[in-house]
Amino acid sequence: MSPTVADLSESALLDIILPRLLATASEESDVVLVGPGDDAAVLSVPDSRLVISIDTQVQDMDFRLQWPNGYRTTGFNVGWKAAAQNLSDINAMGGRGTSMVVSLTLPGNTKVSWVEDLADGLAAAIRELGANDCQVVGGDLGAGREIVVTAAVTGSLEGREPVLRTGARPGDIVALAGTVGRAAAGLAILESSRSMESLGADAVELVTNQLQPWPPLGAGPAAATAGATAMLDISDGLIRDAQRLAAASGVTVDFDPEALAKLKNPLESTGKLLGIDPMNWVLGGGEDHGLLATFSQGVDLPEQFVVIGVVGAGPAGVTIDSQPPTIFGWDHFAG
Amino acid sequence: MSPTVADLSESALLDIILPRLLATASEESDVVLVGPGDDAAVLSVPDSRLVISIDTQVQDMDFRLQWPNGYRTTGFNVGWKAAAQNLSDINAMGGRGTSMVVSLTLPGNTKVSWVEDLADGLAAAIRELGANDCQVVGGDLGAGREIVVTAAVTGSLEGREPVLRTGARPGDIVALAGTVGRAAAGLAILESSRSMESLGADAVELVTNQLQPWPPLGAGPAAATAGATAMLDISDGLIRDAQRLAAASGVTVDFDPEALAKLKNPLESTGKLLGIDPMNWVLGGGEDHGLLATFSQGVDLPEQFVVIGVVGAGPAGVTIDSQPPTIFGWDHFAG
Repeated sequence: MSPTVADLSESALLDIILPRLLATASEESDVVLVGPGDDAAVLSVPDSRLVISIDTQVQDMDFRLQWPNGYRTTGFNVGWKAAAQNLSDINAMGGRGTSMVVSLTLPGNTKVSWVEDLADGLAAAIRELGANDCQVVGGDLGAGREIVVTAAVTGSLEGREPVLRTGARPGDIVALAGTVGRAAAGLAILESSRSMESLGADAVELVTNQLQPWPPLGAGPAAATAGATAMLDISDGLIRDAQRLAAASGVTVDFDPEALAKLKNPLESTGKLLGIDPMNWVLGGGEDHGLLATFSQGVDLPEQFVVIGVVGAGPAGVTIDSQPPTIFGWDHFAG
Repeated sequence: MSPTVADLSESALLDIILPRLLATASEESDVVLVGPGDDAAVLSVPDSRLVISIDTQVQDMDFRLQWPNGYRTTGFNVGWKAAAQNLSDINAMGGRGTSMVVSLTLPGNTKVSWVEDLADGLAAAIRELGANDCQVVGGDLGAGREIVVTAAVTGSLEGREPVLRTGARPGDIVALAGTVGRAAAGLAILESSRSMESLGADAVELVTNQLQPWPPLGAGPAAATAGATAMLDISDGLIRDAQRLAAASGVTVDFDPEALAKLKNPLESTGKLLGIDPMNWVLGGGEDHGLLATFSQGVDLPEQFVVIGVVGAGPAGVTIDSQPPTIFGWDHFAG
């Protein structure tokens, strides 16, 4: 039997996790003045402004330990996703991650090796997504009936102004960085009867987009530098998140159907495999953590962005070619 | 039937919670540049250094919804404790709380009124404990099988150096701010068969210390100003936390038995009631969130502190009148 967290004391478990998390520490970073091991960490905030956000994943709500298609979620998947989701919120403000504090609630029968994987996944995401100045600086460990992973992340604007949801103006262009619909397509595969072994490389990649999303972390700061008027992270679906931006700015976001079709095309084969119209994933699927941003006409668009619509004068809401959309996103409590 | 969170959408629940949390907003504070409602919050950090910590409470682990003595934990209790625990970590570094982000994981059958109470308790603790510049700036809401409340808190050192666990030196005095043992005595009452109605005012107050601890938030900054050499928050018991300070500093913390007896005296009647030696609570009980700090001999001790021991040259560890103690604190995974 491999050991479980109930076999270890809190401090013994911490001694196993911490070195793996500290693998995020960059020699060049001088952000962390006091790291893990005291009552709290101390960070340097050179430009005197800090971005902060918090995000939680719960077993069987945000991920399943075992999916209908047989796949077992690894600790690495969960750790990666926790880091990616949180760093995406900083990206969406135009910032770069500087630190993370992580709270783990673990059932006693959780394997220690699973928790080690989680720490490795967290560290790998921070590094591989390019958040090179971000370090895990503290955390909390406790027991519970289900796995709950919460991370709070801080970020730096590096002297830029934050990009809010409120600044979109009629006439702006609407642009997307990163992907939409891929994580939702991956979710549909995990919830189908198609085993991982039966899938082609494309479909496996979609599952990876669901389990280990790849937010375009450079794009947020680039958009801020280019003068983005509004921006947010697409976490609950393109339509639902565009509605949020539209409501906050008091404008209409009108999507170009041809641009949406281009986003749908790479998902066609998986749509056929599962008998699902992939436009559902493009419009309603979150969790790729792409960025939706608005820019003034004629701006030099950062390379990560493609134009997918325009901003109209109102009423506040979302349209596709001036028609109301019929597919919506995700609500955590809706039945 | 009163409504549950499953009856509401995520945004409807947020609309109920947010105004209650924003009751923490002080007109005078200019810390919050961007508050709740965007992908992340933006804080002002005038002295370019930030203290940060995270802490989680889990139903049936950190609190019971219903205790053996019949008491039902209110949302107000849980919200208060979440704020108090987190603010205590900032206090223990010598800082003052500036912001909080809060993640709530709630079973669908949680009553909306319970969640309203939780938001009120969080806001009340921030205000009544004296963290006047602290505001809730963001959060996350999700469903789960049990209630999990995680808060991350930021703080300011206001130009002071942080007080770490590592700086205690032989010859220093050991001092306590706040209380020890009261929350543990309250826990023993909750876990007994003594109903709340059967208790005297003193015992009810001990239960309140368990459910809504009162960390001495001014004492941390005062200790830092007075030149405290080391400090931590007593969350897992006086002996266990003193051991941490001793280990970090490489010194012996030697407690004065007469000082410990004085801490025990107010708990004698409750000890008799329950048939428990109250020294167990003084030495092994955490959760009052008092501060243990060391100061150079002859320092002008801040008024919140009383001397309870001295620092010796080693070996690293804790003694009482130079003898090893026999009562230890709390480990989250130990059986």
